[in-house]
This record gives sequence, structure tokens and C-alpha cells, in this order.
Amino acid sequence: MIPQPSPLAMVPFVSVENMMKLVTRIGVPEMIAGIAQVIEDDFRRWPEFDKTPRIPAHSEEGVIELMPTSDGITYGFKYVNGHPANMTRGYQTVTAFGLLARVDNGYPILLSEMTVLTALRTAATSAVAAKYLAPAGARTMAMIGNGAQCEFQALGFQKIIGIDTVHLFDIDPAATSKAARNLRESGLQVVECSTPEQAVTGVDIITTCTADKQCATILTDNMVGAGQHINAIGGDCPGKTELHRDILMRSDIFVEYPPQTRIEGEIQQLPDDHPVTEIWQVVSGQVPGRESDRQVTLFDSVGFATEDFSALKYVHARLEYYGDYQKLDMIADPDDPRDLFGMVMRAKGDE
Amino acid sequence: MIPQPSPLAMVPFVSVENMMKLVTRIGVPEMIAGIAQVIEDDFRRWPEFDKTPRIPAHSEEGVIELMPTSDGITYGFKYVNGHPANMTRGYQTVTAFGLLARVDNGYPILLSEMTVLTALRTAATSAVAAKYLAPAGARTMAMIGNGAQCEFQALGFQKIIGIDTVHLFDIDPAATSKAARNLRESGLQVVECSTPEQAVTGVDIITTCTADKQCATILTDNMVGAGQHINAIGGDCPGKTELHRDILMRSDIFVEYPPQTRIEGEIQQLPDDHPVTEIWQVVSGQVPGRESDRQVTLFDSVGFATEDFSALKYVHARLEYYGDYQKLDMIADPDDPRDLFGMVMRAKGDE
Repeated sequence: MIPQPSPLAMVPFVSVENMMKLVTRIGVPEMIAGIAQVIEDDFRRWPEFDKTPRIPAHSEEGVIELMPTSDGITYGFKYVNGHPANMTRGYQTVTAFGLLARVDNGYPILLSEMTVLTALRTAATSAVAAKYLAPAGARTMAMIGNGAQCEFQALGFQKIIGIDTVHLFDIDPAATSKAARNLRESGLQVVECSTPEQAVTGVDIITTCTADKQCATILTDNMVGAGQHINAIGGDCPGKTELHRDILMRSDIFVEYPPQTRIEGEIQQLPDDHPVTEIWQVVSGQVPGRESDRQVTLFDSVGFATEDFSALKYVHARLEYYGDYQKLDMIADPDDPRDLFGMVMRAKGDE
Repeated sequence: MIPQPSPLAMVPFVSVENMMKLVTRIGVPEMIAGIAQVIEDDFRRWPEFDKTPRIPAHSEEGVIELMPTSDGITYGFKYVNGHPANMTRGYQTVTAFGLLARVDNGYPILLSEMTVLTALRTAATSAVAAKYLAPAGARTMAMIGNGAQCEFQALGFQKIIGIDTVHLFDIDPAATSKAARNLRESGLQVVECSTPEQAVTGVDIITTCTADKQCATILTDNMVGAGQHINAIGGDCPGKTELHRDILMRSDIFVEYPPQTRIEGEIQQLPDDHPVTEIWQVVSGQVPGRESDRQVTLFDSVGFATEDFSALKYVHARLEYYGDYQKLDMIADPDDPRDLFGMVMRAKGDE
């Protein structure tokens, strides 16, 4: 008889279907706000985390990355790919899954889809940064790039920052229509724009989330005015940027983890010693965020492992109450840990 | 209604139970030999692989590691922990799982338990190295450390090298009894030894697979005689070694991937420029393995990502014919890849 796996050996797994259930039960804005709270708390205890730039495997078509971190109690990592050409082939540009494990014994405690969850945590991170960097009383946001991230960003900024109007622009008008349709019942005033110039004029916040794997110039210098906050989330690997260098030169730049951002972010265009501020220092009150209403602030966001960790912790804490999940028999757990062979052999009787 | 995930989004998952079924259907020695063949083939095309030392998260209790690699077509990684104190707490010292994905679009194609599979691939790797390094006509092997790896090593060497006798020693006689009992019907002559000296005397091959996270001296210099091959697999992280330095000084040392072995292997005791030979060069015929019957050869094995990749490929290729597996809804796959939000919202109707 196949021995039944012990409870120790069972790992809770949140499938895409169960993640969608969790999101719709909690609500998108509420879940982004909840994740933002954990991200903010974890930024405040930043020195406790083991940090390393993510480990990429680059190919012509895209990149596959592992993003590990640990706070000494819990270990987490995310697997994520980025394949810009996937969309035209009917695949998702970015897919992801993640894991949490106990540091003291190495046993996984959660495996979860993270394609959906990454969109929520990215919006949450952007909104956390904007709390400290956007102009006071910001109400309008331009969104350049209306792909998979767009609606989550819009709803996150509505909930956390108080945005009431979004200007949408995408080189593909169908993407803009899709986003506008999805935001119809959000309470946001949605303006579909036919040029990026139209989208950015007069807004408080500019969010760029385009997906080309190349050095593009989504924003030129003349498009950015005094006092605006730029939330740049689409430049996230070597050779992939969205902003003209001149914008960077007159912005105060805030980043997640400099060793990773210097490789992957907008600041890959700048010398390695160009001054940047770590966002955790702002969140923890060690250095100021926005200091004047003329200042151009730039959150050069590439996504960092601790944000995924925070999002997974949020999900893990809500599993029992809100969540449907499966239990995976992922970890061998023989009665005698030294007798792995005996465990395998005893399975034979069942065949 | 919750949209049903498309076939693209479903990832085959081999649980521990299904891995045990696969192993018992194929047979332990046969499966080790099959994996050894893939490992050998992959060693022969070593330059095609992306290689990096594994990425560890160390803690007082142990280590959690990620081991990624890619051959440009397929990407793979293993998650593995090593927690020596786990055994006394009723947990497995080493647990693992692994994943294969397509490089061209980043989509996972296999998720598998690897606690059982790692034991098989480690035995397979050891046997591949011994094919080139053990003395001709080797028939006897000492096994110092009779834990979870022991029986797999014994059966792998019986099948691939032709070993007919194993000498077992462990500081815990119960571990030795367990291994002897498990090997009763293997056809191997099993000798339970009460000292390591008794175990190693006169044997052709010495395998060390102990688990203490410390610099131990399982073998002292006087225990190793001319012509013996040492298969050292227990020293596999910084501060964890098994052999006295003097043994290393008079051995010809073969390793998997020098940048990783110099950090983790027995050779962490030696200067960084101490000469070692990469085992793939021996397997591919570029440099000789054993050259004389007086030579002491040492395979300083720490386990490398390509070996896990090879083992996962072996499993993947046999899934349809031999394997039971589940399909996991792990990858979000909206009809319109840009409409992740719409996919989540459409799930709401079902709640």
C-alpha cells in the first residue's frame, strides 16, 4: 500500500483559479491595499532581509528569472519569465509562480501562482512609493501602456492615492479600449488618448508600463513638467528602458535595490555613481520623499524579491479564511528520515 | 463561470507518491542507469549549458538553495534545502523539488518532487564519475554514512560499475542495520562494519556520504591506500567537509563545476589555484580519467544543476508511458494576454 503522506509533507497550492477566487472575494482595490500594507511594513524592516539581484537566464526571446529573499524566519522566491513576443503567439508576456518556506527546516509552506499576484503586488508597490513621492492631493494619472498591468495600477492608485481620473494611451488602440472597458465601473473618470502627449499633459502622475524589450523612448524630456511624479515600471531588464536620459537627469530618482536597478532599471542609462535614494529609507522615515511642488520625482521600479515575499505572506495569512487551495504531496516524508529507500520500496506493494 | 484553464496553462506535476510509483515501475537500478545515461550525455555537451554556482540562503539551522541552468532550449531549476538537525526533529535533512520550462516562451513544462529524484541523480552522477575514475575491475565499495543516500549509491554502483560487495559503516549502528536490511535482496554482499577503518580496508572505492554541517574528518590519511577511488558526496557547503587535507594533497581531484566546488567541496580546504579536473572533460574524452593503478582518485562531488536538469528530463520523457501525474493550473492564460484583469473579473460570476 502506498503510505499516505503526512501533514508535514503537504504543501498548500493556490492555483490560478483559486487566486482569482481569492481576488474577487477580497476585491481588487482592497487586496492591492492589503498587499501594500505588508510591502510597506517589510520596507520598514528592510535591513532584516537577505537581498540579492535576481538571477536571470537570458535568451533571444526573453528572460527567465529567480527572485529569492529571506527575513531569517521565512524564505521566499518567485519564478518569473518575460517574453515580449509571447503576446503575439497567444501566450502571456509575464507568467510567474512563487513559494514560501520555513527557514528553520527548509520545508515549503506555500506554492502559489503569481501571474495574477504579481500584477497586484506591482500596483501595490507603485502606490506605496507614490504615497511618499507624488504631489500632494494628486488626482490625475496618465498610463502609457495599457497591457496586463494597467487596470491594477489604476485601481491601486485610486484606492491608495485618491486618483479620480486616468488618461490612457497605448500604441495599440485595442489595448486602450480593453482597459477603458474594464475600468468602466471603477468610479474613475477614464480618458482615452490618441497621443502620449495628450495623455501626460497636466497630470499629477505618469505611469509607464510598456513591454518592448528594447531601449525605447516612451517619454521625451519636453513631456514631463515640474512637479510631476513618474512611476516607471516597464523598464526592467538590461536593454529595456522607457525614459529619455534627459528626464532622468532632472529627476530625483528613487529605487528599490540599487544593485539590481543599476542593471535593469532606467538608470542603466546613467553612470554607476549617479545618486539614487532607496525607497525603503523614505518609507522608514530616514530620508525625505518629495520635498517641493516643483520637483520631478521618478520611481524607477524594476520589481524586487521582497515585494513578492510580502504578497505571498499576504496570501498565506488569508488562505484559511478566504482561500480555496489544494494540498500538494511535494515533500517526501518517510517515517524514518534516513530511510528514503525503504519508503520508496514500500510503495511497490500497491502496484 | 470560472473559465477553464487552457491546456497551455496546465503544468504536469509529479508528486512524491507518483515519483515512487515511477521508480518502482522502472526499478531503482534501472532508473539510476537511465538517469546516468542522460547525465553522461549532458556532460558531453557541457559548453552548451548556462552555468552558475547555486544561490544559497544560509541560516544557523541549514541552507536553502536554488540551482538553475539552461541549455538554450530548456530551462531547469531545483529548490533544495539541507538541514542536518531536521532528522532528529522528524523531518527530512534534504528535501527538494524541481521545474523544467521552455526557454522560448518561459512556460513551465514539468514540476516534480525531487527528494526521491535527487537521491537517484546523486547515485547516477557518482557512478558516471566512477566509470572513468575507479580502478579497473572494481568490485568492493565502502560506504561511510548509511543515511538516505546509501542504498541508492550501492545499487547504482552495482548496476553501472559492477560492485558486488559493500562495507557499511555509520556512527549510528541503527542506520547501518537499516541499509543492510534494505539491501538484503539486492544481490550485493553486505558487510556491516563497526569501525570506518574496517569498512575501508582493501576496498576499491570509498564513498563518503555523511551529513554533519561541520568540517569533520571522516577519512584520515592513513585510511586511504594506493589505487583507491574516493567518491566524496557529503561535503557540499561552506564549512562542511569529510576528508583530511592530507588525502586531498595526494589525490587527483575531479570536480563538477570548479566555481561552486571551491566554495562548497572538500577543496575549500585548499588554495584556490590547486589543480582540479572537470569531470565533463573526462567524460567527453578531452582529458584522461584514471591513468594508473597506484593513483588515488577523488571525485569531490557537491551536486550541480545540470545533473538535476538531466534527471528532470529523464522523468519528463517517461511521464506519458510510465508516469502518473497531476495537472496544475499554475499559469494564468487569459484569452487576450493583455486582459489579465478581465480574466480575473470574469471569474467573479461564479462566486
